[in-house]
Formats: sequence, structure tokens, C-alpha cells
Amino acid sequence: MATAPFDLVLRNARVATASDVFDADIAVSGGRIVQLGQGLGPGRREIDAAGRVVTPGGVDAHCHLDQPMAPPVRMADDFDTGTRSAACGGTTTVIPFAAQEKGGSLRAAVADYHRRAEGRAHVDYAFHLIVSDPTPAVLQQELPALIQEGYTSFKVYMTYDDLKLDDGQILDVLAVARQHGAMAMIHAENADCIEWLSQRLEAAGRTAPRFHAHARPMLVEREATHRAIALAELVDVPVLIVHVSGREAVEQIRWARAHGLNVLAETCPQYLFLTADDLGHDDSYQGARCICSPPPRDRANQDVIWGGLHDGLFSVFSSDHAPFCFDGAEGKHPGGEEAPFRHIPNGIPGLETRMPLLYSEGVLGGRITLQRFVELTATHPARAYGLHPRKGAIAIGSDADLVVWQEGERVIRNADLHHAVDYTPYEGHVLRAWPALTLASGEVVWDGTQFHPRPGRGRFLPCGTPSLLPRRSTLP
Amino acid sequence: MATAPFDLVLRNARVATASDVFDADIAVSGGRIVQLGQGLGPGRREIDAAGRVVTPGGVDAHCHLDQPMAPPVRMADDFDTGTRSAACGGTTTVIPFAAQEKGGSLRAAVADYHRRAEGRAHVDYAFHLIVSDPTPAVLQQELPALIQEGYTSFKVYMTYDDLKLDDGQILDVLAVARQHGAMAMIHAENADCIEWLSQRLEAAGRTAPRFHAHARPMLVEREATHRAIALAELVDVPVLIVHVSGREAVEQIRWARAHGLNVLAETCPQYLFLTADDLGHDDSYQGARCICSPPPRDRANQDVIWGGLHDGLFSVFSSDHAPFCFDGAEGKHPGGEEAPFRHIPNGIPGLETRMPLLYSEGVLGGRITLQRFVELTATHPARAYGLHPRKGAIAIGSDADLVVWQEGERVIRNADLHHAVDYTPYEGHVLRAWPALTLASGEVVWDGTQFHPRPGRGRFLPCGTPSLLPRRSTLP
Amino acid sequence: MATAPFDLVLRNARVATASDVFDADIAVSGGRIVQLGQGLGPGRREIDAAGRVVTPGGVDAHCHLDQPMAPPVRMADDFDTGTRSAACGGTTTVIPFAAQEKGGSLRAAVADYHRRAEGRAHVDYAFHLIVSDPTPAVLQQELPALIQEGYTSFKVYMTYDDLKLDDGQILDVLAVARQHGAMAMIHAENADCIEWLSQRLEAAGRTAPRFHAHARPMLVEREATHRAIALAELVDVPVLIVHVSGREAVEQIRWARAHGLNVLAETCPQYLFLTADDLGHDDSYQGARCICSPPPRDRANQDVIWGGLHDGLFSVFSSDHAPFCFDGAEGKHPGGEEAPFRHIPNGIPGLETRMPLLYSEGVLGGRITLQRFVELTATHPARAYGLHPRKGAIAIGSDADLVVWQEGERVIRNADLHHAVDYTPYEGHVLRAWPALTLASGEVVWDGTQFHPRPGRGRFLPCGTPSLLPRRSTLP
Amino acid sequence: MATAPFDLVLRNARVATASDVFDADIAVSGGRIVQLGQGLGPGRREIDAAGRVVTPGGVDAHCHLDQPMAPPVRMADDFDTGTRSAACGGTTTVIPFAAQEKGGSLRAAVADYHRRAEGRAHVDYAFHLIVSDPTPAVLQQELPALIQEGYTSFKVYMTYDDLKLDDGQILDVLAVARQHGAMAMIHAENADCIEWLSQRLEAAGRTAPRFHAHARPMLVEREATHRAIALAELVDVPVLIVHVSGREAVEQIRWARAHGLNVLAETCPQYLFLTADDLGHDDSYQGARCICSPPPRDRANQDVIWGGLHDGLFSVFSSDHAPFCFDGAEGKHPGGEEAPFRHIPNGIPGLETRMPLLYSEGVLGGRITLQRFVELTATHPARAYGLHPRKGAIAIGSDADLVVWQEGERVIRNADLHHAVDYTPYEGHVLRAWPALTLASGEVVWDGTQFHPRPGRGRFLPCGTPSLLPRRSTLP
Repeated sequence: MATAPFDLVLRNARVATASDVFDADIAVSGGRIVQLGQGLGPGRREIDAAGRVVTPGGVDAHCHLDQPMAPPVRMADDFDTGTRSAACGGTTTVIPFAAQEKGGSLRAAVADYHRRAEGRAHVDYAFHLIVSDPTPAVLQQELPALIQEGYTSFKVYMTYDDLKLDDGQILDVLAVARQHGAMAMIHAENADCIEWLSQRLEAAGRTAPRFHAHARPMLVEREATHRAIALAELVDVPVLIVHVSGREAVEQIRWARAHGLNVLAETCPQYLFLTADDLGHDDSYQGARCICSPPPRDRANQDVIWGGLHDGLFSVFSSDHAPFCFDGAEGKHPGGEEAPFRHIPNGIPGLETRMPLLYSEGVLGGRITLQRFVELTATHPARAYGLHPRKGAIAIGSDADLVVWQEGERVIRNADLHHAVDYTPYEGHVLRAWPALTLASGEVVWDGTQFHPRPGRGRFLPCGTPSLLPRRSTLP
Repeated sequence: MATAPFDLVLRNARVATASDVFDADIAVSGGRIVQLGQGLGPGRREIDAAGRVVTPGGVDAHCHLDQPMAPPVRMADDFDTGTRSAACGGTTTVIPFAAQEKGGSLRAAVADYHRRAEGRAHVDYAFHLIVSDPTPAVLQQELPALIQEGYTSFKVYMTYDDLKLDDGQILDVLAVARQHGAMAMIHAENADCIEWLSQRLEAAGRTAPRFHAHARPMLVEREATHRAIALAELVDVPVLIVHVSGREAVEQIRWARAHGLNVLAETCPQYLFLTADDLGHDDSYQGARCICSPPPRDRANQDVIWGGLHDGLFSVFSSDHAPFCFDGAEGKHPGGEEAPFRHIPNGIPGLETRMPLLYSEGVLGGRITLQRFVELTATHPARAYGLHPRKGAIAIGSDADLVVWQEGERVIRNADLHHAVDYTPYEGHVLRAWPALTLASGEVVWDGTQFHPRPGRGRFLPCGTPSLLPRRSTLP
Repeated sequence: MATAPFDLVLRNARVATASDVFDADIAVSGGRIVQLGQGLGPGRREIDAAGRVVTPGGVDAHCHLDQPMAPPVRMADDFDTGTRSAACGGTTTVIPFAAQEKGGSLRAAVADYHRRAEGRAHVDYAFHLIVSDPTPAVLQQELPALIQEGYTSFKVYMTYDDLKLDDGQILDVLAVARQHGAMAMIHAENADCIEWLSQRLEAAGRTAPRFHAHARPMLVEREATHRAIALAELVDVPVLIVHVSGREAVEQIRWARAHGLNVLAETCPQYLFLTADDLGHDDSYQGARCICSPPPRDRANQDVIWGGLHDGLFSVFSSDHAPFCFDGAEGKHPGGEEAPFRHIPNGIPGLETRMPLLYSEGVLGGRITLQRFVELTATHPARAYGLHPRKGAIAIGSDADLVVWQEGERVIRNADLHHAVDYTPYEGHVLRAWPALTLASGEVVWDGTQFHPRPGRGRFLPCGTPSLLPRRSTLP
Repeated sequence: MATAPFDLVLRNARVATASDVFDADIAVSGGRIVQLGQGLGPGRREIDAAGRVVTPGGVDAHCHLDQPMAPPVRMADDFDTGTRSAACGGTTTVIPFAAQEKGGSLRAAVADYHRRAEGRAHVDYAFHLIVSDPTPAVLQQELPALIQEGYTSFKVYMTYDDLKLDDGQILDVLAVARQHGAMAMIHAENADCIEWLSQRLEAAGRTAPRFHAHARPMLVEREATHRAIALAELVDVPVLIVHVSGREAVEQIRWARAHGLNVLAETCPQYLFLTADDLGHDDSYQGARCICSPPPRDRANQDVIWGGLHDGLFSVFSSDHAPFCFDGAEGKHPGGEEAPFRHIPNGIPGLETRMPLLYSEGVLGGRITLQRFVELTATHPARAYGLHPRKGAIAIGSDADLVVWQEGERVIRNADLHHAVDYTPYEGHVLRAWPALTLASGEVVWDGTQFHPRPGRGRFLPCGTPSLLPRRSTLP
């Protein structure tokens, strides 16, 4: 009998899960949700949600924090500032990447990344692995052992010189994923096409940021998406295509699904709220702020992405937070000068704005249901990467990671954000809702005004087996 | 404070919702779920689920009970036997059809149908309407008023002489659905094609049951599905295609979804577990048992339907229970003799076997997740027809409609079923699980062995606004 | 040995067939091509083509001449003015329609139509039939006999109150086509949708010509196209979809072809050179000139049609010439006033401009090859309707129907055209080529400046079996 | 005036071109067709075709003759035996490949290949180039110069270690094709996938010939086809996909065509008449005879290929003749033993049987029209590679390359064929027609019984600009 007072009771919540919306109090003890009901017993601390919507804390399953870069470039956010920013935007679990260096060991990368995270995070974290050098040792020893230890997802790149794998290597990595039940993520862009276009653009003196989009037209993403699907089909293993940007890749994924293939997909705020125009119309360097890959497309493609969020094509909505300052040589100005687009670090910040943007334009804008919002931002990422039901759920026994949503207009200003990046691509965007409260394991980390730091609060989460798909990965 | 004992506590449940699976006790008072948690306070009655999976009671959103038929044919199940059978198979909400007669009023049909249900049902029920004569009075007065009163869904037929509407009439009905936020369901088969083929088959003396499938090839369904989608697109309103049978209709629906149209879809057990072979290979009359429309297809099409269940194409899994006895002139033998296929009543029983079949072959067979099972059998039907979260959810405030699942082999025998039909098409099929307990509003109606009758327990449920889709029915 | 002089030698021709382009003289005797070669023997008449391109005379397989209309409306062109106009634009064979009246006999329609044509035509003609009332007598007696007599193609309408057939009737007609090897043409637009939209537009006072396009959006054509394909698939017979206007119908036809169905398609100049904007932006009545069905779409759809012409999707390029004067109550102003769009006769003139427009923009504009031009305007129509190789070919034994093309800018002016319509929708359009000479059975009917009339020169052509498809109409 | 007798008159021909079929005599002088007509003047030699079908001599645009191989393997056919075999099967033009060695020069390859051909060929020949090492010298100097000199087509491989290019190299080659108006052909199979599968098959001891098909499933071809299309789309250049084997690649090509891309396609007899079963069901080595790449698929895929031949998807029907003897170490038994599938030379003989097989099963089997047969076997290959109208046409001025077809059953026996290979994969196949006469430039090379050799009769044909597509390669 739960006679002792709870650690915390969040009263009068309009609880939203990925399937249901209902009114209840939420009782928390030991950092976990222990009761749901109306008129629950007393808590040592009580908070009145006053009928506001309460969702599971967000799981940002694609973000980059303190990831080693080639000097002088460095990521502006480490686990301290990154998870601070996450928490203030309603995200209570992050899954950044422990990236193998070519020639290096995966395990060493993991160990190094633990050192970077240890004692600094304000919310819980897990690690994806990046496999950039699938040697026999990596494939046969390191990966299987790491999967066993809770690193159950890894990403492979089809582009970027220091990361990309060839098709044979991807098949090898996918075979490990299949054998050990891990989840493979793929960055799908055709490296040769990008290089070929980039050389021609450079030869023509077209090096301003806006030409980044010219070097990566949609077909470059479509081709690699089709290829990634084919490779996964050959190995007969699920695969998750990250950061899908528009129509052409979406069509390939729909094709795969219609043919019974387990192809999951992720998209990001930049494909809903930015366009290639944000890279600039003239040769100004300002557009460097919005350089990411794949690049943002256009309005018609934004609609396609909204369609996929609504319709269930996408399982995961992530930030792909990649924090580089605009000013200074460590960020978007490597070399001190206005760099050609090829040398500008790819990526934009977004950890803190991910959930408010989708809540505002998706839920309040009438494009997706509240349940779908929860599914995309929390439940499905947690299931896809083996963190559910500890994460991504408002359920008995789940970590008490909760967000209370406050409706009302709020203008995005970088000055108000909590990351260490000196800009946001959404400066001036008017939101319709914002987290009034973020709880991480039952602790208030953000109260709608104030961040409540406690470095080390965030724990490393070993991941279990992905549970988004049924046991038989493919149909007969 | 909930100090008084609960009416009932279901302990040690492995609670499955459409999004989450977790361990908890479920406390019930006043017929509703009032608390979820571990170690909840005492109940006046306590039941130990012993770690078994507990799902929301099923919502069978497509079934026919005691619907007036042209004599001598009559439906074998009324609200008594039908809901009895439902309850024993884990279904706690049924939505049969109040069918307008051509020349008659819709309201009169509703009143008549209430008389048939009143005091007889063992589980709760709502009504869909069938609009067979959309006169101005029906369109401008009856339908809007009935929607207001809780009849928020209606079905139109593209085939059957006594029911079918032409395209203009369907547009009129869809326009009402759009204006008043109701949900339109469409039976999509091309009537002219069926008639044309039937006449030729009859002229050739091909009247045995198996020719039913020859008269309704897949293209007949595909064409009507495409047309239904086009009509809904023209009116800009969501539409739900019922009892989708195979690949060709599925492709049309996928096409619609990829084009941003809100086309929902339902399928039924007969398209997973029967094939056209079950209509017979010779001219025997035995196959009359499995005559339904659209007819079952083949194994390859079964796989396509499984693919759509897995992938999210289908939102609703219903029985399309249409209860006709095999023996006797009231059922599959109208006229006393072996009737030509055209005169055999269409439809097969399935209320009681719907959920066990899908649980066994879908969840335990590894084809769909447990969450998806809940979504298809309970949550999404409830949301699609405005009964959520009262129905279809294990959530605070929801009706305590619950099923405890018992794994173990069990052979389907009609002798063990509770409907009034003298056969089941699944005779001899080996299940892997069966409801060990069904609770309806907290009352035990089935304990795994025994049915606990209480005619009148079942209440009429006025339906609210469908909530499966976001507020903006279509994308920009 | 052909020692006697030929009737005519056309020297130094750059002969273009649907497959080959080569330099040769063309010798004509008895109205037929008797020799091809360089340095052929003398002709009683000799014409120097001077290296210009010479193509087969055009076959306009879709045009309306002197077709009975409901008073006061009447067609401006009869067989005299219509074939005059055709000849001056390079067309030497026309196939207008003998249209059955509902309640009337097909044979009577044919007899009446022969009376209208007899002795008036300047170029040869065949008849399509229009079946508007497929009674048993028509299906079992009239149609089979008429097919036998050389009326081997018929058109059915899915729209227009006085013409449309329901799906069952279409199946009946298609079955006759299959049994007797005739070619069925289908006007594919959904009548109910058009009526439903028209009523709503009228109720809103939206009756100006431009609303004609609002009453017939692309989905209305797409749906009917899909349905027509399904009906033909059910009967297992080839079918030709006439006047395809844009993307949505094209996609359905591509789908059919990819699935092995023998679905042929026709398009017309209005879908390449007009858009819905030509129906007007304001409520002016001027746009009535361009009212035809389906209506012209937009620039993107023009590109889709060009794509289909290039790629081989389309087999036939016709004018759908439907001649109504703009001024006067007999044409676009029925009732003497500015009529609501619903009452404006559908159709635009185009017999004379069909070939020059396609030659100019297609061949000289670099969008299609010269061979494809010949195929679309002459060879394939002749093969589709059983007139080949007598028509549509530059081959030994073919009728000496030839066009010599003159490159050079020429502005289309209605004053220069030879039809009896008081406007052309292409007024002011600048062509890049025009026929410098049209020969019909070896007689000069147009010399680039002057029309050479001889009413009665044109003969009725009984049609043989269509030969565009192989003997087995469908694949295994 | 052509008063002198012709060199040859072929009388009473049923002339078939790619567009027309008509009755005429064909007069030949100086090796060219100089007149077509009925009752032509006398020839020094006269042959009576007796009303039989006469088609243009075949153009086999994909065959391998005397191509240098890694010892001990060598091709069994050189230009003597290869063109002998071609002629006896109705083919009068061959286009084999001058293949660059990695590290070698293209020009050297061309010079070497001329030495191999010079004075040995019995019918005319042109060369495709194979680019295996696109160095700057090759791209900027050799290729442009060779195109200028009449080598206007080149092939690139996406598989085979000694030939394959990476995507960047393919882009480079395609850019040359675009700039200089050459035609690029692509062998589309994913090399990494094949290698990955082959290693696993070998590790499992699965090395018998039948596992060749397991190492190259359809998705391997589909992926590469999609990629090839994407690369061509990026460069905006037409491309021709060679030897398409079945449904999955066909779907990609249909997709490309529907999107306005100029993707041409070729298929071969092995994809109509063989299946993977011909590689054997057990581990017997006999199936090595039918090893080619892509491998033959199954009956359903044969139907898909027939559909594409009928429908116009394919432009070119070639043999891909690759002549290796079954017995002896030079052919299918490299190393003297029964080699693992990976080491068996890929390719099968087919020059002589290509046209009779398609004529028999396609034309006489009712699957394609006679015109389409001519188009696929002669006219379109000639146009695609810049040999038209000299080749591929029965037209004034064309080379007098003609085939007279004799209907009647004839069993294929390798003993009756004229190549130097010791088997045919079609042994025992019953044909319905065979060439009764083959004329090359007006000379009889095959009279239905006897081959009439004249090594050196065959001339090298410099190719002009491809003319199968309109001048604007892509639509707006």
C-alpha cells in the first residue's frame, strides 16, 4: 500500500501519451512514475498543472555534443550546455554519437565519450555509435560486445570523407545489426555526386553558402536513400534513414514500406521551418548559419514532410543539433575568413527549439494530433533505440520525465536560449507554446523561466533491444 | 484522497496500451479506471492478472446485429447473442448499423434499432448509420440532427441494389460529413461490374458459391476504392474504406496517403485467414459459409494485408460480423434449396474470434507489436468514431473495459462459441491465446470458461467527434 | 515495267515516315504512291519539293463535323468547310462521328451522316460511331453488322446527359468491341462530379466561362480514366482514352501500361497550347471561346503532355475539332445572352492548326523527333482505326496523301483559316512551319496559298481491323 | 532516269519497316536501295520473295567478338565466325566493343580492335568503346577525338573488377557524352553487393553455377539502375541501360520515363527464353552454359520483359553475344576443373538466334507487331547509335541489308549454327520462322541453307550522332 507521501504529485494534468489523452494526477517517487489517478494521495512536493497538457519528456535521438572535430573547428555545446538547452526545451533524454575515428577503435571512442559526458549532463543520455572503419576487429569483436553493453544503435555515413563507408562496408555493418538485433541509422547522400558538383561549383567561383544547396540537390539524397534501402533489403534488416529532407527521399521510403521492408525514417525541424532561401540569395556569408546536410529544400517539400509526420511515415523527429558558432574560427568561419561552402561545418543548433516548434505548428497548427506529437518526439525514439518504457512514456515505472506545456505566443530569441551557440536559425519565429515545466526523473530542471542546473544529474542509459518493430523483422 | 477501497483492483497486470507496455495494478470504481500504479490500495474485489497481458476491451467497429433483412433471411444474432459472443472474445464495445430503408427515414431506422438493442446488450454499443436514400430531408435535417445526438458516423454502399448510392449521392453525403465533422465509411465495390459478371456467370450455369469470387475480382474493389478516394478528395473530407481485401485496393489507399489525402482503412480477419479456396473448388455448396464481400483472395494478398497492419496503413481491424446460419432457409439457404451464389446472404460470423486470431497470429506470430494490436482492435476504432478515451484506452477515467490474455493452444470449435450462428469459418483453427477474462465497465462478463450474462448491462454510447485525425483535415 | 509516265512525280522530297527519314522522289499514279527512288522516270505533272520535308497527309481521328445538335446550336463546319480547312492544314483524312440518338438506331445515324458527307468532302473520310443507347438490338445486331461494313471504332461517353453510358452499358459495348475486333474510344470524365460541382458553382453565382474549369478539375478526369481502364481490363479488350489533358490522367494510363494493359491514349493541341487562364480571369464571356472538355490545365500539365508525346505514351494526336461560332445564338451564345458555362457548347476549332502547331513546337522546337510527328499525326491514327497502310504512310500502294512542309514564321490569323468558325483559339500564335502543299490522292488541294476545291473528291473509307496492337491483345 | 538495269531486284516483297508494311519490289544498285515500287524495271539479278516478309537486316548493337580476355580465357568467336553467324541469323550490322584496359589508352584499344576486325568481317561493323579508366587524358582528349571520328557510343560498367567505374568516374564520362552528343550505355549491377554475396556463398561452399543467380538477385540490378538513372539525371544526359533482365529494373526505368528523363533500355533473348532454372537445380556444372549477367530470372519476369517490348519501354533488342566454349579451359572451364561460379566467364552466344527467336515468339506468337520487331532489332539500334538511315531501314539510299523471312518450324541445333561456340543455350527450341535469305549491301550472304563467305565484305562504319531522341534531350 502506498501510504507514505509521494516524492512529488503533479496534479490536474492533461496527460498525453502516444495513444491516449486523459486527465489525471501523476505521482512520482524515487524518480519514477508510481501512480496515475484522480485525487491521488499527498506528495512531499505538489505542483498544479492546472489542466495543462503534460507529455513525456522529449527524447532527442539525433544530436551532436562535444564530438571531436578537426581543429580549429569545435562544437560549441558540450554535455553541460547541450543538456541544459535540451531540458529548457522539454527534452529529457539525448542520444549523441560516440564516433569512431578511421584507424581508431570504437571502444576507445566510447571511453572517450564517456569521459566527456561524465558528471556534466543535466538530463539522461545514451550513446549511438558511429562506425567509420569497420575492420574485422570492429565487426566481430567491438560491435557485438558494445551492443551487449547497451550501445544498440549505430550510424553509418554514405558521405563525408572522414566517415563514409562504401556499400560493401555498409553491408558488413548491417549484417552485424541483423545478427545482434541492433538498429542501424544511415545518413543517405551520394558522396561522389556531391564531390563532383562541388568541384564544378568551385571551378565556377560559386562558393558562397547558398551553393551548398546546389551541391546537394534532392536526387543526391534520393539515390542514396534508394541504395540504403536496397542494402538493408539484401541483408534483411530494419534500417532507419535519418534527417529526410523532402519529396524524393520520401517517395523512396514509401516505396520500401509498400513493399514490406522495415525502413524507418526520421526528419528534423529544419525541413519544416527552413528553406534553401535561408542559405541566402546573394553571395552573402550570412546563410552559413543554416548550412546543414541534407540542405533545407522549399515550401512544397515542407508540405511533403508535414504529410509524412501526419501520416505515420516518420517514426522519429529529432533536432540533429550540431552546434557551431557563427562568429570565430571554431565555427562557421574556419580559417578566419569567409570560407567556401565546402569548408563550412555542417549543422545547426536545435535541441531547445525542436519540441516547441513541433508543438506549436504541428499540434496547435492542426497538422498532427497530440498523440502523434508524443509518438514522434518521445515514444517512438525511445522504442526505436531500446529505451522504452523507461523513457518516452507516461506510464507506471517510467522515469518521471515530464513536460508541462504552456500555450501563448513566444518569440524565439537566441538570447533566451540555453545552448552555447551564438545564433539560432529560428530567430524571430513566433511560437504558440513553450514548456512551462520540465521534470527529469522527477526533478524540476526548467520552470518556464529558470533553469535548475545539477551537472551529473544526467545518467548514462544503456540501451536495450529496439522495440518499435515486431519480433519478426520481415513479413513472409 | 482515495482512502475508500476501490470497487475492483486488477493486480499484476502487464498493461498494454497503443503506445506503451508496463506493469501495474489497475483500480476500478464506478465502472471506470481510477488509478494505475504498483501496490495500489485494496479493492472490494481483487483479481490477480499474474503478470498476464491486459489490453483495453476490443471495439468492434464493424458488425451487423439484428439488422432487418428481406424475408426469409434473418440475422442469427441479435444484441443478446451478438454481444454475448463479443464479450467472450474480448470485445466490449460494438458498433452495429442502423440502416435506412430506401423510401424510409433515417430517424425511424434509428428508433427501430434502439428498440432492438434496448435491454438486450451485454456490452456497450454505439450505432453507425447506413444512408441508403439521401433525400433532401435526410441530408439537411435528419443527418445533421442525428450527428448532433451522437450518431457521428455513417456508411454508404457502392454496391447492393437496396443500399447503393450513385456518385452524386455519395458526394452529397460526404458534404454532410464534412460540414458536421462526421466520419464517412464506404463499402467500395463497383455494382455494375458485379452485375455484369454475375449475369455472364449465371448464363454459363456457374452459380456455385465459388463463383461469388469470380463475380467480384480485385479490380472491382480497386476501381471503387479509387472512385471513393476521388469523391472524398473532391469534397475534401476524410473517408474510411471498410473491409479492404487485398493488394489492388491497398495500392490505391497508399497512393492516396502519399498524396496527402486522409483516407483511412479497415480490414478484417477473413482477409488474413481465408482465401477464395474456402469458397470451394468444386460446385459443392459448402463454400457458402465463407461468402462475404469483398471475397477472400489468396495467400499473397493475405501477406499484403499483414503488411498494411504492420506498417500502419490500416487504422481499424473489425470483424464485419454478419451472422447467417448455414442450415435453414433464414440463412445461407434462402428458398430452401442450394441457392445460386447471387442469392446467398453475404457475410460471415466473427465477433468472438476477431481478437484472439489477431493476437495469436499477429502478436505471438511476430507480425505486429502488442501496441499495434491494441491500436487496431481498440484505440483507433474508438478514436475514429468518437468514443475515445472513454473506450479503447487503459487510462484514468476510461471505462474499465479490459481483457486479460491467456497464452496457450486452443482450437476454435463452433460448439464453444457464443453466437447463434451454426458454424464458424475458422473451425479447427489453432489459436495461441484466448481471453482469460473480460471486464465490461469493471464487471466480469467472461472468465475464460463461463459467460456472465446481464442483458441491459450494455449501454448506448452517443459518439463524439472523431479524433483520429488532427483538426485540419487536409494539409496545405 | 513502269514505262509510261507517272501521273505525278514529287521530286527531291525529304521523305519522313514514322520510322525513317530519307531523300527520294515520289511517283504517283492512279492516286496512289507507285514508286519511291532517286531519279524516277517522268511524270505528267512534276513538282519539286526542293529538299523540303514531306510527310504523310494527316489523319485527324477525332473531329466533329455537321453533327446534329440540339437547336439552336449547330456546328459551323460541315463536310465542305471542315475538310477544306483540314486540307489546308495538311490533313487528308478525317474521322468524324456518326452519333446515335438515345432512342434512335445506330444505323439510322450512319445513314443520316452519309447523307451529310456525300458529295461534299474535299478529302477522304471514315466514320467513328457514337453509341449512346446500347439496346440489345444495337449490341447484338447493329454494331456487329456495322463493324463488318467498315465502321470499326466507336466512342462512348462517361459524361454529357444525352450521351453518357453507365458502367454496365460500357461493359456491354466493350464486350462487342472485343468480340468483333473493334476499337473502343472513351471520353473519360465523371458525370456526377461535374454535375455536383456545377450545381454548387451555379448556386454561388459562379457561371462565367472560367468556372467551366472549376467544374471539371483533374480528379474528375483521373477518376473516370481509372474506371475506364478497369472496365476494359475486366472485359480484356484494348481501349483508347481520348483527349487526355494532364498529369493525373496520364499517371493512370502509365500505371495501366506498366501492368500490361492495352490502354492507348490521345491528346490534342489545346492541352499543349492553352491553359485554364484562356477561359478568363474575370467574369468576361470572352473565355467561352476556349471552353472544351476536359478543360485546358496549366503550364506544368502542358509539360506532362509533351512528355507523353515524346516518350510514346500517346499514340494519337487529334484536333477534337468541334466548330461553334463565338457570335450568334447557334454557337457559344445559346439563348442570345451570355450563357452560364453549363450551357456553352463544348469544343473548339482546330482541324487546320493541328499539324502546323505540332510541327512547329514539337519538331522544330526540339521536343519530338520528325518520325514521332508522323507517327502521332498520321501513322498511328491510321493503324489504330484500320486505315493503314492505305492512309498514314508514304509507302508503295498507299494513297498519295502528302504534305510538303515549308519552314518560316507565320502568324495564325482566323482570317487566313478555311473553317467556318469565326475565331481560332490560337489567334496570333507564331508558327515556325506551314504546309506548302497538300496532296490528296495525288491531287493538289492546297498549294500553300490557295485551296483547290473539289467537293466529292473525298471518298468514304470503310475501316478494317485496327492494327496498332499485336494479334494477342493481352500478355499471358 | 534509271534506265539501266538494277544490280538486283528483290521482287514481290512484303516490306516491313518500323512503321509500315506494304507490298513492293526492292531495287538495289551499288549496294544501296535505289527504288521501291511495284513492277520495277529489270535487275541483273532478280530474286522472288514470293510475298514473304522482308525486314531490314538486323543491327546487333550489343555483342562481343574477339575481345581480349585474361588468359586462359578467350572468346570463341572472332570477326570471321561472329559475323558469319550474325549473317545466317539475319543480322547485317554488328557493334562490338573496343575495350580500354585499365592503365591503357582508349585509342590503343581502338587501333587493336581494328586490327582484329580488318579483312575478316562478313557484314558491316561499328565499334562501341568501353571506358574503364577515365583519366583526364581520356576524358579531355581521347574520347572527344574518337567521338569526332565516329565512335559515338561508349559503355561503362558498374561491376566487374577490371572494368567498373565509381560514381564520380561515371559522372565524368557522362559529362563527356553530354558535351559531345555521344550515347552512354551502362551495365547496371552493384559490384559491392555481388562481391558481398559471393563471399558468403563461397564461405558456405555454394559455388555451383546456379549460385551465380543467388549472387545477383534483382535488387542488385535495381539499385544500380536507379543509381545510373540518378547520375544521368544529374548530368542531364540521355543514357541507355543495357540487358535489362526483369521487373525491378523495369520499374525504375518506367519511373524515370514518367519523370521526363531520357532513359533508354535494351533487353536480350536470354531474358525472354531462359530462367534461373537453366543454371541448374543441383550442383551440376551444366548450368555454366547459361551464366550471364544479369542472370536470367523467372517466368513472371519474362512476361514483364515481353510487356516492355510490346509497350515501347525497350528501344533495343540485342544478343549480348559473349562467346565462350563450354568444353576446354579457354571457356566455361577456366583452370581445367569445374570452376566456382565466380570464375566462370559471363556470357552466352546468341548472335544467330536473336532475330529468329523474336520473330517466332514475338511476331508470330502475337506478342508484338511486325513493325515493332523491325524497330527493336534494326531501326532503333541504328538510330540510337548514329547509323540510321544507312542501317536499320528499308528506304531509298539505305544499304541493301535485307532479310527474307520463311515461316515454318525449325529446331535450333548448335550443329546448324555458324558461330565457333560449342553450344547454344537454346538447343532444341522450336522456332516458327527463319531467314530464307540475308542480303548485305545487296550481296547474298545466307540463302537459307548456305553461307556465302567473303571476309572483308564487312566494312567499318563510323557512327554519326544518335538520332533516336529529339534535339532537346530533356523537356523544360
